[in-house]
Amino acid sequence: DPKLKIFALNSNKPLAEKIADAVGVKLGKTSVDRFSDGEIRINIEESIRGDQVYIIQSTSAPVNDNLMELLIMIDALRRASAKTINVVIPYYGYARQDRKARSREPITAKLVANMLETAGATRILALDLHAAQIQGFFDIPLDHLMGAPLLADYFLNHHLDEDAVVVSPDHGGVTRARKLAEFLKAPIAIIDKRRPRANVAEVMNIIGDVKGKRAIMIDDMIDTAGTITLGAQALVDAGATEVYASCTHPVLSGPAIERIEKSPIKKLIVTDSIALPAEKQIAKIDQVSVGQLMGQAIKFIHENKPVSPLFKNRFH
Amino acid sequence: DPKLKIFALNSNKPLAEKIADAVGVKLGKTSVDRFSDGEIRINIEESIRGDQVYIIQSTSAPVNDNLMELLIMIDALRRASAKTINVVIPYYGYARQDRKARSREPITAKLVANMLETAGATRILALDLHAAQIQGFFDIPLDHLMGAPLLADYFLNHHLDEDAVVVSPDHGGVTRARKLAEFLKAPIAIIDKRRPRANVAEVMNIIGDVKGKRAIMIDDMIDTAGTITLGAQALVDAGATEVYASCTHPVLSGPAIERIEKSPIKKLIVTDSIALPAEKQIAKIDQVSVGQLMGQAIKFIHENKPVSPLFKNRFH
Ligand SMILES: Nc1ncnc2c1ncn2[C@@H]1O[C@H](COP(=O)(O)O)[C@@H](O)[C@H]1O
Ligand SMILES: Nc1ncnc2c1ncn2[C@@H]1O[C@H](COP(=O)(O)O)[C@@H](O)[C@H]1O
Repeated sequence: DPKLKIFALNSNKPLAEKIADAVGVKLGKTSVDRFSDGEIRINIEESIRGDQVYIIQSTSAPVNDNLMELLIMIDALRRASAKTINVVIPYYGYARQDRKARSREPITAKLVANMLETAGATRILALDLHAAQIQGFFDIPLDHLMGAPLLADYFLNHHLDEDAVVVSPDHGGVTRARKLAEFLKAPIAIIDKRRPRANVAEVMNIIGDVKGKRAIMIDDMIDTAGTITLGAQALVDAGATEVYASCTHPVLSGPAIERIEKSPIKKLIVTDSIALPAEKQIAKIDQVSVGQLMGQAIKFIHENKPVSPLFKNRFH
Repeated sequence: DPKLKIFALNSNKPLAEKIADAVGVKLGKTSVDRFSDGEIRINIEESIRGDQVYIIQSTSAPVNDNLMELLIMIDALRRASAKTINVVIPYYGYARQDRKARSREPITAKLVANMLETAGATRILALDLHAAQIQGFFDIPLDHLMGAPLLADYFLNHHLDEDAVVVSPDHGGVTRARKLAEFLKAPIAIIDKRRPRANVAEVMNIIGDVKGKRAIMIDDMIDTAGTITLGAQALVDAGATEVYASCTHPVLSGPAIERIEKSPIKKLIVTDSIALPAEKQIAKIDQVSVGQLMGQAIKFIHENKPVSPLFKNRFH
């Protein structure tokens, strides 16, 4: 029987530990560091010949370094005769560059998919891709996990589902909001952003009833936190009693932490798909782990079982 | 007739300007910067449909960022219908990871070649690749330029060829040293490093006659400058009257500048294949430009002429 081995690269070792725990194996021995000039040096320190190998790496910031670590590791595993190379990407960087919005733009999300395949990946395990279409950028099997049930658990466990309304910060996120609303048995509302004229601030209209309710916003990622914090203020202005926010991927770049601190958001619930450095671990942010979910998914894949029962219709 | 267009990315704009000057065109309009989270944003700001496009980029430090800029630019050009995408790489990063020296190592130089082709490069123009074998990592045409004639010009113009001996810092570099020696009409010597026992300092023996001579060392790249500065001391100890050093690629990482300052090297002559930040532009280092050479090569390629006459047998 081919052995199951899990290797962690540098982007998110705490999550990799949790995933390995959930699977019931120890992380494989490897060293991933730098030569003096900054080039990546990878050494796999145990035989993996004929094994089913899983690599855990989020391509979060520093995105180019984390992506190259991943590609070089895949190359090394392939040359060392791994039987399968399963790439577990809790956060898929460059996902927003998934179409040509203007002429002469790259489609970097597709370039990354091509590079992973060229390097030798045989399978992908992803979590809340920015657009579901990115699945089609790959010609190898891809399993797509969902973070919403875990975020729902948080709100249920903290009894925050009472008098709640789930709010999508834009029209693109309504499906995700509806999913969370199903879990919480709550209604939904949508923030409708509109710019009345060019060079004039956007106006936030709220479609749906939030007055006197606990508003729970959900998005796939929060980057500079502009949309979510403006949305929170609009919800308060519309009479929401308190505002929670949640997302799968806490990108939190630039002014994000300052904006969240200053905003009326009471708590922001995120997953650990991206590791938070100390300065981003503020009291307002709670993290729930996807380690158990991803570990279960790896076990199912290894046993040739479909992974979708892990998150679909969990409450039925 | 398809137009010739040259685009510069961020690693070495001064060299790109020189190359464009030599070709007689202006650099194409493009913006290559970052989103808030560090992801690369590229915008090509003029039509390139049906054009023959040349991209100038050294994959020097920060190597992963510079490489990703290059790959994303190639992707954007391909999707914008460039007729050909010619990648000009004055310095090819990861070139030293060109074989498995130990078990379970990657061959990153080949991975990079595959990624350039997957992204859509149709031709490569390189300069002094660390190993000539890297040419074979590509299935698209590759032209390979040599820096030694330009370094030779420096020594000839400064009348440093009299009483000179050209020294290779190791056995791998003898062909390069012999080339420079031909240009200077000088004999050669070789530094023979040997470690008598494990955990004992290396001993440097000099094969050939350096006593009373001006020693001119040559290598393809100088990284931490350990080999070259120890070699310089060994040459002085063996009676060389003065020591010069030269290389095509000034990587100069970590302790390099300090070591060079402290060493008996009188002058280090390098090319501008890698841009030197201000703190590395010290009095001991002189830079000669490969701009004219690479510009000429681009013109020859565009006119379907072989580039080798540009550097082969120049003095015959
Ligand atoms: N890392 C990034 N940060 C901010 N915006 C981005 C990033 N990558 C791509 N974009 C832009 O975001 C838009 C896509 O975002 P979305 O509409 O949310 O899918 C496109 O116009 C992209 O140019
Ligand atoms: N960026 C780097 N810095 C230092 N050593 C490297 C680098 N990349 C690869 N190497 C190592 O250098 C050796 C090859 O160097 P060489 O013998 O000069 O071709 C291999 O053992 C590599 O592991």
